[in-house]
Amino acid sequence: MSASFPPDSVGLVTPQTVHFAAPLRLDSGHTLESYDLCFETYGTLNAARDNAVLICHALSGDHHAAGYHHEDDRKPGWWDNCIGPGKPLDTERFFVVCPNNLGGCGGSTGPLSVRPGSGKRYGPDFPIVTVRDWVESQARLADQLGIERWAAVMGGSLGGMQVLQWAIDFPARIRHAIVIAAAPRLSTQNIAFNEIARQAIRSDPSFHDGHYYEHDVLPEHGLKLARMVGHITYLSDDVLHSKFGRELREGKINFGFGVEFQIESYLRHQGESFVGRFDANTYLLMTRALDYFDPAQAYGGDLTQAVAGCTARFLVVSFSSDWRFSPARSREIVRALLDCDHDVSYVDIESALGHDSFLLPIPQYHQVLSTYFAGIEVAA
Amino acid sequence: MSASFPPDSVGLVTPQTVHFAAPLRLDSGHTLESYDLCFETYGTLNAARDNAVLICHALSGDHHAAGYHHEDDRKPGWWDNCIGPGKPLDTERFFVVCPNNLGGCGGSTGPLSVRPGSGKRYGPDFPIVTVRDWVESQARLADQLGIERWAAVMGGSLGGMQVLQWAIDFPARIRHAIVIAAAPRLSTQNIAFNEIARQAIRSDPSFHDGHYYEHDVLPEHGLKLARMVGHITYLSDDVLHSKFGRELREGKINFGFGVEFQIESYLRHQGESFVGRFDANTYLLMTRALDYFDPAQAYGGDLTQAVAGCTARFLVVSFSSDWRFSPARSREIVRALLDCDHDVSYVDIESALGHDSFLLPIPQYHQVLSTYFAGIEVAA
Repeated sequence: MSASFPPDSVGLVTPQTVHFAAPLRLDSGHTLESYDLCFETYGTLNAARDNAVLICHALSGDHHAAGYHHEDDRKPGWWDNCIGPGKPLDTERFFVVCPNNLGGCGGSTGPLSVRPGSGKRYGPDFPIVTVRDWVESQARLADQLGIERWAAVMGGSLGGMQVLQWAIDFPARIRHAIVIAAAPRLSTQNIAFNEIARQAIRSDPSFHDGHYYEHDVLPEHGLKLARMVGHITYLSDDVLHSKFGRELREGKINFGFGVEFQIESYLRHQGESFVGRFDANTYLLMTRALDYFDPAQAYGGDLTQAVAGCTARFLVVSFSSDWRFSPARSREIVRALLDCDHDVSYVDIESALGHDSFLLPIPQYHQVLSTYFAGIEVAA
Repeated sequence: MSASFPPDSVGLVTPQTVHFAAPLRLDSGHTLESYDLCFETYGTLNAARDNAVLICHALSGDHHAAGYHHEDDRKPGWWDNCIGPGKPLDTERFFVVCPNNLGGCGGSTGPLSVRPGSGKRYGPDFPIVTVRDWVESQARLADQLGIERWAAVMGGSLGGMQVLQWAIDFPARIRHAIVIAAAPRLSTQNIAFNEIARQAIRSDPSFHDGHYYEHDVLPEHGLKLARMVGHITYLSDDVLHSKFGRELREGKINFGFGVEFQIESYLRHQGESFVGRFDANTYLLMTRALDYFDPAQAYGGDLTQAVAGCTARFLVVSFSSDWRFSPARSREIVRALLDCDHDVSYVDIESALGHDSFLLPIPQYHQVLSTYFAGIEVAA
């Protein structure tokens, strides 16, 4: 590790890529003949191979969860505050694996990838993938890495949905399921927000039905709007108020449509910076995976039946001010697990920071994670 | 009244227009040299001229609050369930006046109007108007109609804000102030939603910096998105769930970006039908009037001081599931009024229907209005 990084950082990391030559049949009926998964690992897999933890990322996440790619990176990975030596997910004890999801834009096969044999990017022809598809692809990655059983699978938001799906689909391969700020399915309002984001992208004239790469343009305005809409749902009304209030950027009203209030400046900035780092077709795919996720559906809408076969121990965490996936949504999961007499711990963390709380180093939250991980047994 | 209309309808109505030749100095510093106000009236002004009620409309409303413009109109005015013979606002007793706001697109002078001397529409050059400007223009309309003092001024949402401003600016001219589903100022989150709507409109390539009329196009996509964003905030999560749930339009998932869930169909329809009836420049203006409204600002943020000079009796109404302007926001108004020992009645109506409740014939709500209006004395 470079001396320039904090001592509790995993330091410099290098993404790896595994090529999968075996076809993957998707929920949609499409088959990916082959694909790559890009991922990072932190810590060391022990000899017993029982200390591996899978991190599942959320809507706009990727495989770069911790550490730095370059000596001069300003920011570390997206969950760096949680993963590292001595951190809640302690890389001195655990071997952490974080893949970029299939359909993503971080290096795994997705819309940006060149379609084999065509010489052109998949673009909008990349098939829509589901949470189940992701879990299946992650299971194949585990095979590749020689990990028969995860010590834990952990994720927040859409990541938490993947954790729940793991516990349902591969009960023998997951000892602990850590489901954070998630829901067993989207609410109508959640779908409505996704739909607005999609319409923003798809109605941008630069979208060209998803073939924007070939036109050498990006649906910038649409993707920016989509991100702005998302941001409203990530933050609570309270935290918006305490961060920005009604503060005017120039101290007075200018009677125009430039930035007047600080919140406008914040949203525009969030939208613009997203355009440079995220692919619009991936954003569309990811929101559909969210919409479609509903493990209870195959059981007549009965979540209890859906989780009946789970054997993992569960930790479910929600945040008091999260209105995207409110504590009530987490409790739906907890109730279904309890109905099955499964082993589940549930904590609702008092936080004013909304849905984004799951990414933040809130002391009580990190204490809960530290304590929970400390209780997970691994071979010496 | 035509026999084809219900007996409790005000029947066929014809909008009227008054031209104001005296210049109106606006909060922005701009002056409108002259302007028209388009309005409708229902009922009859009594000889004592003490039975007039002013209705202030909300963001997407207009002067057509009740009755029908044509024999074959499918729908009556936007508040028809509330205004008519024997209805909560009984036109047998009261003379009701509802103007289209300045800057609107319903017939009053606004961006669609031809600018005097230029031969061209104002378009984006129409000055941004404030709630105070509206109240001032409505006071001049009252002068014109020979109404020295309103029996009541009533409005919901942005309309309720105008009512509050009336009570502050013209205490001698308003006997009763009926403030429904409103707030004393927007929250940061409220502004954030407005900003997204504005960005959607302004980033539409057909917007042409507001000069779309001259290009013979409309910023359809942007205005549609703006309306969709608005609609999410008008309805509660619960009512979205009970109306649409996760119901699939074709009964199965199609793995595409067409309409899958019924909520998507609803939102797209709401957006599209708005495009045909509302002007984008007006939408921008109206959202800024919302953002800027903050009567306490001139009093160091102290709403109590702002309302200290009010003499009207107040009825404040909120709706339990309204998350755009929650009951807590109405209670801020009530608290300030009570701090001044003003006469105020406050009712929080139990309703699952969200912000839109104020437009709906909820029995308890209409009972409250009926009772309140019954208590307003007017000359025989």
